[in-house]
Amino acid sequence: MTRRVKKINTSGRCMQGELVDKFKRIFARRGRSIILAYDHGIEHGPSDFLENPDSADPAYIVKLAKEAGFDGLVLQRGLAEKYYDGSVPLIVKLNGKTNLYTGEPLSVANCTVEEAVSLGASAVGYTIYAGSGYEWKMFEEVARIKKDALRFDIPLVIWSYPRGGKVKDETAPEIVAYAARIALEVGADAMKIKYTGDPKTFSWAVKVAGKVPVLMSGGPKTKTEVEFLKQVEGVIEAGALGIAVGRNVWQRRDALKFAQLLGKLVYEGRKVEELAGEVQ
Amino acid sequence: MTRRVKKINTSGRCMQGELVDKFKRIFARRGRSIILAYDHGIEHGPSDFLENPDSADPAYIVKLAKEAGFDGLVLQRGLAEKYYDGSVPLIVKLNGKTNLYTGEPLSVANCTVEEAVSLGASAVGYTIYAGSGYEWKMFEEVARIKKDALRFDIPLVIWSYPRGGKVKDETAPEIVAYAARIALEVGADAMKIKYTGDPKTFSWAVKVAGKVPVLMSGGPKTKTEVEFLKQVEGVIEAGALGIAVGRNVWQRRDALKFAQLLGKLVYEGRKVEELAGEVQ
Amino acid sequence: MTRRVKKINTSGRCMQGELVDKFKRIFARRGRSIILAYDHGIEHGPSDFLENPDSADPAYIVKLAKEAGFDGLVLQRGLAEKYYDGSVPLIVKLNGKTNLYTGEPLSVANCTVEEAVSLGASAVGYTIYAGSGYEWKMFEEVARIKKDALRFDIPLVIWSYPRGGKVKDETAPEIVAYAARIALEVGADAMKIKYTGDPKTFSWAVKVAGKVPVLMSGGPKTKTEVEFLKQVEGVIEAGALGIAVGRNVWQRRDALKFAQLLGKLVYEGRKVEELAGEVQ
Amino acid sequence: MTRRVKKINTSGRCMQGELVDKFKRIFARRGRSIILAYDHGIEHGPSDFLENPDSADPAYIVKLAKEAGFDGLVLQRGLAEKYYDGSVPLIVKLNGKTNLYTGEPLSVANCTVEEAVSLGASAVGYTIYAGSGYEWKMFEEVARIKKDALRFDIPLVIWSYPRGGKVKDETAPEIVAYAARIALEVGADAMKIKYTGDPKTFSWAVKVAGKVPVLMSGGPKTKTEVEFLKQVEGVIEAGALGIAVGRNVWQRRDALKFAQLLGKLVYEGRKVEELAGEVQ
Amino acid sequence: MTRRVKKINTSGRCMQGELVDKFKRIFARRGRSIILAYDHGIEHGPSDFLENPDSADPAYIVKLAKEAGFDGLVLQRGLAEKYYDGSVPLIVKLNGKTNLYTGEPLSVANCTVEEAVSLGASAVGYTIYAGSGYEWKMFEEVARIKKDALRFDIPLVIWSYPRGGKVKDETAPEIVAYAARIALEVGADAMKIKYTGDPKTFSWAVKVAGKVPVLMSGGPKTKTEVEFLKQVEGVIEAGALGIAVGRNVWQRRDALKFAQLLGKLVYEGRKVEELAGEVQ
Repeated sequence: MTRRVKKINTSGRCMQGELVDKFKRIFARRGRSIILAYDHGIEHGPSDFLENPDSADPAYIVKLAKEAGFDGLVLQRGLAEKYYDGSVPLIVKLNGKTNLYTGEPLSVANCTVEEAVSLGASAVGYTIYAGSGYEWKMFEEVARIKKDALRFDIPLVIWSYPRGGKVKDETAPEIVAYAARIALEVGADAMKIKYTGDPKTFSWAVKVAGKVPVLMSGGPKTKTEVEFLKQVEGVIEAGALGIAVGRNVWQRRDALKFAQLLGKLVYEGRKVEELAGEVQ
Repeated sequence: MTRRVKKINTSGRCMQGELVDKFKRIFARRGRSIILAYDHGIEHGPSDFLENPDSADPAYIVKLAKEAGFDGLVLQRGLAEKYYDGSVPLIVKLNGKTNLYTGEPLSVANCTVEEAVSLGASAVGYTIYAGSGYEWKMFEEVARIKKDALRFDIPLVIWSYPRGGKVKDETAPEIVAYAARIALEVGADAMKIKYTGDPKTFSWAVKVAGKVPVLMSGGPKTKTEVEFLKQVEGVIEAGALGIAVGRNVWQRRDALKFAQLLGKLVYEGRKVEELAGEVQ
Repeated sequence: MTRRVKKINTSGRCMQGELVDKFKRIFARRGRSIILAYDHGIEHGPSDFLENPDSADPAYIVKLAKEAGFDGLVLQRGLAEKYYDGSVPLIVKLNGKTNLYTGEPLSVANCTVEEAVSLGASAVGYTIYAGSGYEWKMFEEVARIKKDALRFDIPLVIWSYPRGGKVKDETAPEIVAYAARIALEVGADAMKIKYTGDPKTFSWAVKVAGKVPVLMSGGPKTKTEVEFLKQVEGVIEAGALGIAVGRNVWQRRDALKFAQLLGKLVYEGRKVEELAGEVQ
Repeated sequence: MTRRVKKINTSGRCMQGELVDKFKRIFARRGRSIILAYDHGIEHGPSDFLENPDSADPAYIVKLAKEAGFDGLVLQRGLAEKYYDGSVPLIVKLNGKTNLYTGEPLSVANCTVEEAVSLGASAVGYTIYAGSGYEWKMFEEVARIKKDALRFDIPLVIWSYPRGGKVKDETAPEIVAYAARIALEVGADAMKIKYTGDPKTFSWAVKVAGKVPVLMSGGPKTKTEVEFLKQVEGVIEAGALGIAVGRNVWQRRDALKFAQLLGKLVYEGRKVEELAGEVQ
Repeated sequence: MTRRVKKINTSGRCMQGELVDKFKRIFARRGRSIILAYDHGIEHGPSDFLENPDSADPAYIVKLAKEAGFDGLVLQRGLAEKYYDGSVPLIVKLNGKTNLYTGEPLSVANCTVEEAVSLGASAVGYTIYAGSGYEWKMFEEVARIKKDALRFDIPLVIWSYPRGGKVKDETAPEIVAYAARIALEVGADAMKIKYTGDPKTFSWAVKVAGKVPVLMSGGPKTKTEVEFLKQVEGVIEAGALGIAVGRNVWQRRDALKFAQLLGKLVYEGRKVEELAGEVQ
């Protein structure tokens, strides 16, 4: 007997995981995805821009995203409102906190899904700090956001970063895998998680993420280019959809060139060894 | 004098306990019930899947539930959205927390009743940790959920797990009996409670649950098959409707065969001794 | 000059204290009132039922209430939904907490006034723990409930039990009198307060309760019948409307006979001494 | 250039401070104002009534207010509902707390503005404890109340009592002046503040209160009549609109006579010395 | 490919940063801006008015703002309601706290955007204390206010004052720059930040503020006039739009004359040295 699934809304899209496809269709047009992250102004403050002062200017970043052919761009509402020009698909990051805050990890939305759509977003992003004493507040809020995302038919990207509580090491393989699973369980259409350090353990995180595509969070600028490229190679090897990268691109003066290298690894599946001549 | 009961909604279903019958009609078609629980991804993380890596894949679980003839399947919203195919009656578990969280026990809804219905649910589930410093938050939330469950005419299953406060031993007979009563008092249409360890004390829990059918929570995989089957035997002897089991099924490679054994105990009322030849 | 009182709703019932009359008309048909309380399943757990295991069954209690001619019956929503048959006027107790909870005293509603009406209630009950660090949360909630009670034209009974903060002795005369006054000030149409131990001090509580009728809270089963009957005698002497009694009735195997004794004291105003031959 | 002020509601009353005038028109018909306060039942408990047990009866107070010609009467919702007869203008005090509560000072509304209007109120009252760790909760709530007060066109009286935080002495001149200013800044149409002890410092509080009329809070009964009358004299000298007095009136058996003395000071501006023969 | 930006509301104003232009058009008619701040009554109490007692009277301030030709005036709702006469563009400061409060920095709105508009406001103001343990509450609230500000088409001015948490020095260059960026990221149309002490570091704050115009917060009255004028000179040199000044104007008896000096620095870009003869 096949059970007839009741649907409140007539489109039935809830069932189909269509928003995963929509996310891929928009943000992974070449099969894989490289997203430019730029929510550092609120999360870390402008000190992140000191290494390349041009990067303090959102207009510079929007131009970079376009010229380097990034698949998407992550902005907070304030930047989207004043700088976004529609040239690259936009993810509006709905929540944020400063690193001046020292309480239990908590990031709350400063923008609604409706406003994000109005700002031109093709996806919305939300960070969950599982393990925090405020874990429940973020679960409550992501539920409201998920509901709105379905209503506006826009993919929801979860930044899943366990922090606080029992979490000792945020990039431990079991923590990253748990992070991936949380995103799947609460209804993400794509997720951004940290790298475990090697493709083998990261592939378990990708597996438990199930149908939800995985983006590796770029993190702080690595000492050498090779170091970061090796991470990207591992991430792709592990089966991820791609990466969301910020500082490792725009803290470099040769951002455009470095973005091309990333493309070769991510879109063409080439190995760092093969690119030896091009890497510094 | 017979008092005329005023009714706001015309159907009068509030009075009739009809949702208990509806729960039984759907989830206990053979008189008793075996439900497959699979909310471990959020509650415990993917480490629960390591013993049988196939179990990390929700598609594997959905297939297992169907092939083994389970009466129902418990999923969080994210899994229901991307994997549920209507082949087995669905309970959408509305709330959840991670085991990274170390604050006062609190699990909040990440899905509404309306969304659960839209996802194909035939019942909704909600955990209450009575004794927690946040007990009141869960009582507040379950009240909203109960209201919606009545509006959508869908049974409400309470996971009643006293934790924190004065609770020293979560499976002590008086705690389990209290758990059962709480579920009845707040308006459950079915409940999932822990096993006390013997049928005599568990039968008191079943008694104080009144008209609300009781499912035993399977818990961690037992060392031997016999150990778990003995529990199930005791639960049925105590008058429960059945069991909701996860790890004791899908952490076994021979899950299908083990499910058949469970059926003999639960549906046919057979004794573990009688099945000696079939048990490992 | 007589001031014209403005009224938002046209009936003007807010002004008239009509709900006090309505409470008396329904729950004190013989001039005074004996209410059967049965919210112990959530407040204390099923251990209260051990002395008379029949009392664990809500159907037994509903039958007892009818056969013994109680003026009303107090149930939580879950019991009302599954057991109430309209044979005795119902008070749905809207809030509740478990005794496993050890935080600041707080009891929140698990049922709305509208739902209580739908369940057949002729009054709604709500506990306030003044003195608690969460006193304000209960004042906030009782305000919403009062508003709904007026809208649905149903009397509000306040269980007024100061606890925590400066409260050292919950039955000290000044605390009980304060309890009574709080119920009056926030808009109760009837109240349930604890006994001070003697009619003189209790009569002060009754006085400061003003127009709001007072029910004495029965409390734990006394060692002897006489002990409880003496309390009831004192309560009536002090001018209370009656009593709300649970354990002192249904923890006795001879509940029906004991209820008859209560009736003689409460309705007929007889003295314990006169009933010497009938008391154990 | 005169700027055109935009108005959402067409009456433009927000701009005009009309509600101050309305307050004076109703509660200061003789130019100055003597209000009878009677919210002690919730704030202090019935022990305040022991000195004059008649004062425990709200009907006694309503009669006293009328016979002594008070300009207004302050009641909590429960008393207004059951005792107010329209004979004296009514201020419904919207919030309240008990003195059993020992947490951070916090008083929340137990009545809406709409309900107060329905009960016959000509003004609504609300206490703010600036300095409390919950200061912000009261600022949040007073904002909602102010909005409703504008909607219902009813004056808002702020009881401004800094308490907790940096407040060491609640009647220190700088604290009382701050109290007055807070009431003005958040939108009071009248205010009740404590006396600083001398007219000179109190006149600064009256000055910083700006257009908002000031009522002195009577406080506990003074040892001698003269002591209180001297305070009233100082308050009037400082430019206040009048006083809101409770215990200093109804804790006296000769309340009517004492009220007449107050009238001579307040309405006629006479001095205590002149009344020497009439004072005890 | 040019991406078509979806818009919910048809005007598309979200995208255009039009409210920045609107703010400048109204509050910087001479190209730069000098705003008179007067929210000290709630933030610091009336002790700020002692140096020039006239300043306690809002009518005096409104007159001063007009006569000295200020570009705008900042008032809390209570003052706007009772004193604002439309003669100078108004910023209603929506939130406020007292300095008696010693908890985690938190300032909540006591007025809605709609009410501010009704009071004649041409912009609304809101303070965020990033770093506070309640940072998230202010981010939540500013999101609601931003939404309303867009709906009412009124510029939002953020007072961005990091405080608490990791903030050791509120005027450290990196903290002020972070403050500026937070205002940009959450959607400010103008911002008020503290001065770092020199134009070089302040110019970095102005840079990271991007398209959002910067006003320097005047702070406490400096010892000499020159000291304050030097700050203003530095602020203008750093590229700010102007200043929002309170005590440094109205604590001076020669406020009008001092305001003229400010105008020469701000509007005409003159240097303090050039004005030597005019400065005390």
